[in-house]
Amino acid sequence: MFVDLGAESLFSAEKGERKIAVEIKSFVSASDLTDLHNAVGQYTFYHDVMEQIQPGRELYLAVRSITYTTIFQDSFGKLMLDNNRLKLLVFNADTEEIVRWLP
Amino acid sequence: MFVDLGAESLFSAEKGERKIAVEIKSFVSASDLTDLHNAVGQYTFYHDVMEQIQPGRELYLAVRSITYTTIFQDSFGKLMLDNNRLKLLVFNADTEEIVRWLP
Repeated sequence: MFVDLGAESLFSAEKGERKIAVEIKSFVSASDLTDLHNAVGQYTFYHDVMEQIQPGRELYLAVRSITYTTIFQDSFGKLMLDNNRLKLLVFNADTEEIVRWLP
Repeated sequence: MFVDLGAESLFSAEKGERKIAVEIKSFVSASDLTDLHNAVGQYTFYHDVMEQIQPGRELYLAVRSITYTTIFQDSFGKLMLDNNRLKLLVFNADTEEIVRWLP
């Protein structure tokens, strides 16, 4: 565990030669919009805290493919990605494989 | 109501000659950290959405004095303010007066 500040799951990793941290995020509330707020808030918070502790390490939010499709390819989620509000690691929950990195 | 996207309360206002929007935010969860995540997430989300609709209008998050003291004068809340993650309007809940604008 890299840093524990109440994140559901946050761990450090390597991506090529880049040092990254990954937070696994479940989207479980009754509202997609609430989930999106919470994801952006948590990402921003941990990003800024991590910058204090390990400058240069990039933070990625890990979400399932279905979450990416329903939340982040939709208008508001897409706006958050377009505005660089968070970085995503999309994974297939069945095969446990990484599907894509954004950006 | 200026825009309703699930905000607890969001309305437009004027501050001198500047057009602003104010979102009133209650801090009610069991965890200050969760409240802080949610506040940053909601602020960022509405900021970005509002920028699409009315560019140039500034968004302020309205919080009680006690919330300012306990959350935003503490380390993590202070970090969010220092990093310009949100703008605050602090009000006295008893007198209903505005105490300060940050920034």
